[in-house]
Amino acid sequence: MAKEPKKLDELFHDTLKDIYFAEKKILSTLPKMAKAAQNEELKAAFEKHRGETEGQVERLEKVFAIIEKKPQGKTCAAIVGITDEGAEIMEEYKGSPALDAGLLAAAQAVEHYEISRYGTLKAWAEELGLHDSPELLQETLDEEKTTDEALTEIAKSAINQRAEAA
Amino acid sequence: MAKEPKKLDELFHDTLKDIYFAEKKILSTLPKMAKAAQNEELKAAFEKHRGETEGQVERLEKVFAIIEKKPQGKTCAAIVGITDEGAEIMEEYKGSPALDAGLLAAAQAVEHYEISRYGTLKAWAEELGLHDSPELLQETLDEEKTTDEALTEIAKSAINQRAEAA
Repeated sequence: MAKEPKKLDELFHDTLKDIYFAEKKILSTLPKMAKAAQNEELKAAFEKHRGETEGQVERLEKVFAIIEKKPQGKTCAAIVGITDEGAEIMEEYKGSPALDAGLLAAAQAVEHYEISRYGTLKAWAEELGLHDSPELLQETLDEEKTTDEALTEIAKSAINQRAEAA
Repeated sequence: MAKEPKKLDELFHDTLKDIYFAEKKILSTLPKMAKAAQNEELKAAFEKHRGETEGQVERLEKVFAIIEKKPQGKTCAAIVGITDEGAEIMEEYKGSPALDAGLLAAAQAVEHYEISRYGTLKAWAEELGLHDSPELLQETLDEEKTTDEALTEIAKSAINQRAEAA
């Protein structure tokens, strides 16, 4: 089967569609996680991150504009799998003392997926010499890392203890 | 529906089964990625990481022994999704200059999933006061971080350039 050789610009575009789908999926998942969370600090962290995610979607739309493509998602099997695991935790641990610890772990798995994707996209945007895009992607990368660290702090402060002691 | 409240020890055990499944899945995926990779350095990195992964499976078996459970996997939807994306890259970018860049990105998504899981498990093992387990989990966490950094270096050195220039 003869195929057109695919280059980095096409891989960049494919991966942009992948993370655009992922961000939209996360936007619809975070309110459910905020609702399920028992700890007020964790609830607030999920709500705050929902707002940030809206800004991250907008940044992706700017990058689509820079490469002169329409913003479009492509099913991202990874985020579907990661969020399915989060949904399973919400179901299986409902009303249990370890629910918040499980939600937190699920959220950190999401953050790490995004950290890996934005790190990759930023490197490719630099390689491709795209104007403004490395900076836009770096801004989101920084936010994801900060969110991950904030979740680690919340885990340390209360949630893991509660999960064990209850 | 009345349910037994689940505590941190149960969440720890569930998540241990999740990552045990994931490591076995990664063990079967890495040889395919090594075979597909065009760049010799990337091929070698995948082969080296396969060896490390065998050691990581053994460490997990030690942790199962510490909590007095049989080593057992539980389908991890996240790693299934992440590795499905990698398989899609291998198929769609076969023979294309951007193949290695895509394989590298897929591998880094896997590493980040593991980094998040081992970070979580180590924190829970400490909270649960399990002997030897935090150290075993930290050893693997360090290996995953080192692998992720090595992949970033390989990306910088050659692969992204080739993907663009070819």
